[in-house]
Amino acid sequence: MKEITNLMNYRDSVKVVDATLRDGGLVNNFNFSDKFVHDLYLANLKAGVDYMEFGYKANKEMFDVNKFGKWKFCNEEDLRAVVGDNDTDLKIAIMADVGRCDYKNDIPDKSESVVDLIRVATYLNQIPTAVDMIEDAKKKGYEVSCNIMAISTAQEGDLRSALDILGKTPVDVFYIVDSFGAMYPEQLQRLAALYVEFAEKYGKKVGIHAHNNQQLAFANTIEAVGDGIDWLDATYSSMGRGAGNCAMELLLGFLKNPKYNVYPVIKFIDEHMTKLREEGVLWGYDLQYLMTGLLNQHPRTAIAFTNERRKDYTEFYKEIVAMD
Amino acid sequence: MKEITNLMNYRDSVKVVDATLRDGGLVNNFNFSDKFVHDLYLANLKAGVDYMEFGYKANKEMFDVNKFGKWKFCNEEDLRAVVGDNDTDLKIAIMADVGRCDYKNDIPDKSESVVDLIRVATYLNQIPTAVDMIEDAKKKGYEVSCNIMAISTAQEGDLRSALDILGKTPVDVFYIVDSFGAMYPEQLQRLAALYVEFAEKYGKKVGIHAHNNQQLAFANTIEAVGDGIDWLDATYSSMGRGAGNCAMELLLGFLKNPKYNVYPVIKFIDEHMTKLREEGVLWGYDLQYLMTGLLNQHPRTAIAFTNERRKDYTEFYKEIVAMD
Repeated sequence: MKEITNLMNYRDSVKVVDATLRDGGLVNNFNFSDKFVHDLYLANLKAGVDYMEFGYKANKEMFDVNKFGKWKFCNEEDLRAVVGDNDTDLKIAIMADVGRCDYKNDIPDKSESVVDLIRVATYLNQIPTAVDMIEDAKKKGYEVSCNIMAISTAQEGDLRSALDILGKTPVDVFYIVDSFGAMYPEQLQRLAALYVEFAEKYGKKVGIHAHNNQQLAFANTIEAVGDGIDWLDATYSSMGRGAGNCAMELLLGFLKNPKYNVYPVIKFIDEHMTKLREEGVLWGYDLQYLMTGLLNQHPRTAIAFTNERRKDYTEFYKEIVAMD
Repeated sequence: MKEITNLMNYRDSVKVVDATLRDGGLVNNFNFSDKFVHDLYLANLKAGVDYMEFGYKANKEMFDVNKFGKWKFCNEEDLRAVVGDNDTDLKIAIMADVGRCDYKNDIPDKSESVVDLIRVATYLNQIPTAVDMIEDAKKKGYEVSCNIMAISTAQEGDLRSALDILGKTPVDVFYIVDSFGAMYPEQLQRLAALYVEFAEKYGKKVGIHAHNNQQLAFANTIEAVGDGIDWLDATYSSMGRGAGNCAMELLLGFLKNPKYNVYPVIKFIDEHMTKLREEGVLWGYDLQYLMTGLLNQHPRTAIAFTNERRKDYTEFYKEIVAMD
């Protein structure tokens, strides 16, 4: 029987990454109040979270700064307005999407930034650009992870090639990203074994970013802990695109490292997340997301269904099973 | 690596039990409309569900028939009004609680009933009465399961004794019941191994009834499938006491036996469950249930919090961590 975790003990190498602003920002176009962001930073500090992802470093040529909140762009001065020089144990992360980030110009040297970690997000067919972004960020002095998205539709051969290419870069962490919320724990276990094989070969760490389409984001994340995966993404109240992510409050309740503390998370949810929902910001598990997860489809149709305030699940099911 | 399921295949011995009326009845005092119940019966037939649990066989000396819907009592004529002689492949189940069922008088011979399965629900300290109920039901001609509740607070030694006593009865199925929604998949796996040990010794089957306090009801149920557990409880839209149960729509999406079909489940949810929620019937995962699950406490405090429409999660957390 697999010792999924030492139930009463913990593994020091586990890192928790709060992705609330970044993945949650996809729900509300990054329109978080300054108080929300500042309180989240304080909550993460008190909760013992290891990294806080503030948002994207999006290309301003491609995205209109007037149409999104500031965390779509993560200007250095906006980060510093929240964290100062961030003289804390909580590290700062931002995400840089392949093809949607002018990384050479917009990411400064680490010496000029409070950011610690650049998370390069890529699809399998963009790996060469991801490699260039990793090398650029590493040369500038950052920690770097590479999040390979949508792997539930990938061929194993392609994934092996990608991991072998990435293994030879200076990237620190490979991330498994279940973009469609399509994976069951036993599939995650197999995928984890593949990532760990290449991580061990090249001296990398492995991370997991799960989606909750089938109410498995938390279950897959703790499965991953048992499979030797150390970097765990979570968001407060599961806030994230579509069905959302692994809930921070579930994850910190599970992890036994005394540095983690679930109480500040509950307090933050009480003060901020309930309000957000009351204001009409919509995310989280619902039948339309189950369906796209089950069918291993991108959730964009389910998100549209949600945004149109539709409730005719039966019609929606008929629409999406008819898609090729 | 454990072959949790044959991912592309299925195990013929798996049985799905719909517990919507019974566990869901705990949310609305069994006040389901006749149309709801009839449509649910038809949906289960079309979905290929193996057993449908209609409710409790509660003692009318203890419970006022005017204060509950009829499925608290499951009179034979009420069952027949829905299922006729039930000349179908869907079997009918009812639950009989130790100490709350006048089983000798209220459960007729199988020859006089459309019920197929009596589910005896017991706490560990009531096993001798459970044994008497099992023997009574078996003598009358029924299939019988025994659901041992609240085992997340049990001593392993006591559980072993109980399984050894039950093994010697004519019961057909031992049920693992995670009443508090407190168990993680790795704990479930260990418990499943214990139940399977006694089941194999005595020629019994094993079942699982999960609660969703930590969004693990489905994850624990599919973990159980991989551990050799065959009888799986689920409810439509997870409807059940507190955080609810394993969702039927998730479970049938996962199981690969072609006799199961998720579409009638989606259709039923569309037609009935959304309406139930709009009428104010409240169940499902929320922070207060996470907390009692995490602390391995009975959810009664969280249910009270829900019913009072409280949202002050922080205060609630402080209240329940102070409890001994």
